[in-house]
Amino acid sequence: MSQNVYEVGKASQLSRQYGPYVQADWGYANHWYPGVFSDEVAERGVVGITIGGHDIAISRDQNGKAWALSDRCIHKGVKLSLKPMCFADGTITCWYHGYTYNLESGNLDTIVGSPDDKLIDNARTRTYPTEEFAGIIWVFVGDEDYPTPPISTDLPIKVTDKPNAIPHLQDPRIITRGIRRKLYGNWRLAVENGLDPGHLLVHWDNQIIVALDRAMPLGMKALKEDATELLDFEDGPKGVMNRYDLPDNYAPVFENPKVPDIKARGKWMPEIFRVSAWVPATLMVENWPIPDYAQYEFYVPIDDHNHMYFEVIAYWGGTPDQDKEFDMKYEHFFKPLGLLDFNNNDIMAREATEEFYEKRDGWNNEQLSDLDFSVVAWRKHASKYGRGFFESPDFDEE
Amino acid sequence: MSQNVYEVGKASQLSRQYGPYVQADWGYANHWYPGVFSDEVAERGVVGITIGGHDIAISRDQNGKAWALSDRCIHKGVKLSLKPMCFADGTITCWYHGYTYNLESGNLDTIVGSPDDKLIDNARTRTYPTEEFAGIIWVFVGDEDYPTPPISTDLPIKVTDKPNAIPHLQDPRIITRGIRRKLYGNWRLAVENGLDPGHLLVHWDNQIIVALDRAMPLGMKALKEDATELLDFEDGPKGVMNRYDLPDNYAPVFENPKVPDIKARGKWMPEIFRVSAWVPATLMVENWPIPDYAQYEFYVPIDDHNHMYFEVIAYWGGTPDQDKEFDMKYEHFFKPLGLLDFNNNDIMAREATEEFYEKRDGWNNEQLSDLDFSVVAWRKHASKYGRGFFESPDFDEE
Amino acid sequence: MSQNVYEVGKASQLSRQYGPYVQADWGYANHWYPGVFSDEVAERGVVGITIGGHDIAISRDQNGKAWALSDRCIHKGVKLSLKPMCFADGTITCWYHGYTYNLESGNLDTIVGSPDDKLIDNARTRTYPTEEFAGIIWVFVGDEDYPTPPISTDLPIKVTDKPNAIPHLQDPRIITRGIRRKLYGNWRLAVENGLDPGHLLVHWDNQIIVALDRAMPLGMKALKEDATELLDFEDGPKGVMNRYDLPDNYAPVFENPKVPDIKARGKWMPEIFRVSAWVPATLMVENWPIPDYAQYEFYVPIDDHNHMYFEVIAYWGGTPDQDKEFDMKYEHFFKPLGLLDFNNNDIMAREATEEFYEKRDGWNNEQLSDLDFSVVAWRKHASKYGRGFFESPDFDEE
Repeated sequence: MSQNVYEVGKASQLSRQYGPYVQADWGYANHWYPGVFSDEVAERGVVGITIGGHDIAISRDQNGKAWALSDRCIHKGVKLSLKPMCFADGTITCWYHGYTYNLESGNLDTIVGSPDDKLIDNARTRTYPTEEFAGIIWVFVGDEDYPTPPISTDLPIKVTDKPNAIPHLQDPRIITRGIRRKLYGNWRLAVENGLDPGHLLVHWDNQIIVALDRAMPLGMKALKEDATELLDFEDGPKGVMNRYDLPDNYAPVFENPKVPDIKARGKWMPEIFRVSAWVPATLMVENWPIPDYAQYEFYVPIDDHNHMYFEVIAYWGGTPDQDKEFDMKYEHFFKPLGLLDFNNNDIMAREATEEFYEKRDGWNNEQLSDLDFSVVAWRKHASKYGRGFFESPDFDEE
Repeated sequence: MSQNVYEVGKASQLSRQYGPYVQADWGYANHWYPGVFSDEVAERGVVGITIGGHDIAISRDQNGKAWALSDRCIHKGVKLSLKPMCFADGTITCWYHGYTYNLESGNLDTIVGSPDDKLIDNARTRTYPTEEFAGIIWVFVGDEDYPTPPISTDLPIKVTDKPNAIPHLQDPRIITRGIRRKLYGNWRLAVENGLDPGHLLVHWDNQIIVALDRAMPLGMKALKEDATELLDFEDGPKGVMNRYDLPDNYAPVFENPKVPDIKARGKWMPEIFRVSAWVPATLMVENWPIPDYAQYEFYVPIDDHNHMYFEVIAYWGGTPDQDKEFDMKYEHFFKPLGLLDFNNNDIMAREATEEFYEKRDGWNNEQLSDLDFSVVAWRKHASKYGRGFFESPDFDEE
Repeated sequence: MSQNVYEVGKASQLSRQYGPYVQADWGYANHWYPGVFSDEVAERGVVGITIGGHDIAISRDQNGKAWALSDRCIHKGVKLSLKPMCFADGTITCWYHGYTYNLESGNLDTIVGSPDDKLIDNARTRTYPTEEFAGIIWVFVGDEDYPTPPISTDLPIKVTDKPNAIPHLQDPRIITRGIRRKLYGNWRLAVENGLDPGHLLVHWDNQIIVALDRAMPLGMKALKEDATELLDFEDGPKGVMNRYDLPDNYAPVFENPKVPDIKARGKWMPEIFRVSAWVPATLMVENWPIPDYAQYEFYVPIDDHNHMYFEVIAYWGGTPDQDKEFDMKYEHFFKPLGLLDFNNNDIMAREATEEFYEKRDGWNNEQLSDLDFSVVAWRKHASKYGRGFFESPDFDEE
């Protein structure tokens, strides 16, 4: 029996099979997430982000090492990042009353205007584990006492033996460029949009498709029940993958006799369509926008209605020629036509979906079709491997 | 005993006499409402509206016939009207995943990228009855199983035998022009503002009043308890009418000795003041802005705090001269001075009233005066003839 | 035992000692508050304000006397001040239906368009006691049956015998200039910010500090437990005062060895640092911005999340030279560098604090330090002397 069998259109029965996913409106806790791009944080700089309701300040010390700690001063709860102040090596000072924290331990090292204060060394703020590679500062966010797993368990893995396969995020030779933006819409609707083999209509008229004269199928028909591969590497990451390059698994749909006014046009290039989604909230599109490149997307939950959208292009670096070529392509091709023009249509779709799911219980009222096989596979897989739930940090006002 | 007897200033006792009206914050269901103007929807065009919480897409087929169906795709709840797509005669396609509906039946005819999908022909979306005349596409909205009544039961009736009386909406010779705009404020406050014989102070300095040198009375005094006529035509519409043209019913108030600094000015033209309100949410002002024309207003509930305001001028058409004269007057007189300048003051008043009624239970805290006789008559009449209640389509988020 | 003893960092235990203050999110009722500046209200003018949820219209009669009454018409709850109308001496008329109130008694004197209405003289609106001096119209707001106390019980008192001490608000020779602005943030966070001896970091780089080459200490260290004086004059006002001019009470902190990159610069002028907070919501800063002047601030609660911020500079008036000198200094020094540039940093801090206190129960989660001695003294003192609580005027919508 395949993992993808479900009765089309019966959402409320189906949703019980991935209850934890339906519950994860604030996101999965106890995972590694991208926080900011490396070049956003200078030494003694401070950038504030929010992941799953956790306000986090990311700073960089005099040695260039990145640290993450609570962006809420323990004193009166203001955000440290609102007005960055670092007056001593290895510390960050709150701009309001001068509470000064050790970047590494979170210890209250001093209070600027009260050097003998009884609270000094008797209080601390929360810190978060960080890693930095591939041009990104990563943060592990969740329950304070949760043991920190290796970041490799939360990143897509290279699943091919091809020697020049697309660059993996932990590959030392990787070079990346990208953008991030805060968007309206639940993070799950964003992951599903990225993975979805049936949403290609929104990209029908995109400039990059026309420019490359590439055939964008109207849909991808699964030829067997387990067309969507389940990936659960032991001690490694968990995800689902649509290998559109396997002709036994999928058949592209180029036309539909009942809607004669729309047909796929251009050349069909099957190798570009290999798309995977990974726990907690990552998309990998291999050989996209063009062969040998990869596009990574991260839909980092901010709260139940907003997410931070990371769009990253990865390539092989190392020689000046490679770097130069990549920069040229990024600035004048990948970014304007891919990350902006193309992905803007996905963003429009995600925003349009939010109201139904969040206000009208879409999880139990949607009517899925055969096209949703990989979305359902993703929901079940994520339900199984999410390590916990983020929750609203706000008290009830009543 | 008259229908209009009430104790001034005792709102909480009075409100029990029109409980259904107080309850109808989302509007009355199971009635015909204007949806859009005819010229807003081209063939294969789609326009989205919301009536009483129902999101409705109005489209027009290749034969020019208008159809209405749910504007929420059954798949993931996005609005079809967000990006209109019609790829085959008699259908509408969702821009996100290509769910394609039959305009007439609502049947899921196909899915663009999944021509063999099991869901095809096994699901449908909701459709709504429509009519089109007088330059307006009308929609019947309410409970899905409610039998559709004739639209004539929901439109003002011609209540005079005068051969050249003002044009009725179902009159084949009628020509209309108008605008609609989404406004903040509950639909009931809008109806009451239109009917109200005591709100003339807000129009005191309006350009159209000064331009026509017309006396705008400070108020209209009812000379008998049933001055406001109750209209309940069998198998026809239900409404209330202030016949200010009947000197036995009303006396205009031109001055008040206690407030010497304000007096009516200009010429008194009683025939213009005949104002009626009709279930569900319609106003008819006969011989306004000038004799032989009529102004219709529809306060279509969108939700409990917003309504769509239709302002329509009607006249006799048929000959090129009549049409030309009407267009000239509409563009350069009725619209700028009537629909905009004059009515903008009503809009300001309705918006100003919203907070008290919606947040401070104005229905039980208002202090009515003699001037409110016709508003109270309207409330009771509407309570009797409203066919049901709209309700919020949103689930509780908790 | 001092009133200031508390265990640093233990908010939830401490907050029980000033429970009424924590409860006063909408402000303290039954006190005098500044309503508007005198020059804002012309004869027959109307200005609307909101204090602790009370919407109040302030008007001025033909004799120049200021009156205050409910800004909600009893009829349909609109704000009278939205479109000021006064058609007869000593009255105010609602712009919507002409309900006309006596300014002094609140009696419904007439209805413009219904001179014989049964409601006339049978209804009234609420009035509020007023006083006018020091360029401000003051209003007493609270429970309708609460006996009006003398305004002197709610204003800072002159606490020095120095003959040329800074001007007190009820001093007949006082002249004032000022501004008011509606701000986001709870009123308590604003009072505390003004009183706070530890928030000087936000003013570190302010133009007025640099221009005057004045040493702004990083903090003020209390040298004894009762450094903050408690002021509770019998039949007079209640407040707390930090007398930074007393070297036995406080020591300024100019540097902190643990944060070498920030130090106080400029000349130390202890006499300027005398700051007091008064029930209900007033700050007095003596000899500020320069000696012999005083700055008064009022943080008038509007609702639980917003306050009206009054910033007032006071000086001695009487001779043309004094007045001219004051005007010159106000327009070109006090206002741009003090009320705007300097105070804008306080505003930023208050707004930044709001979320933590209102959404995350900051009152029980803050971690106070020694620097908070006077804030804690203020909280306890205000808890003792607040005369009642404002409450939300809104009904639950459910």
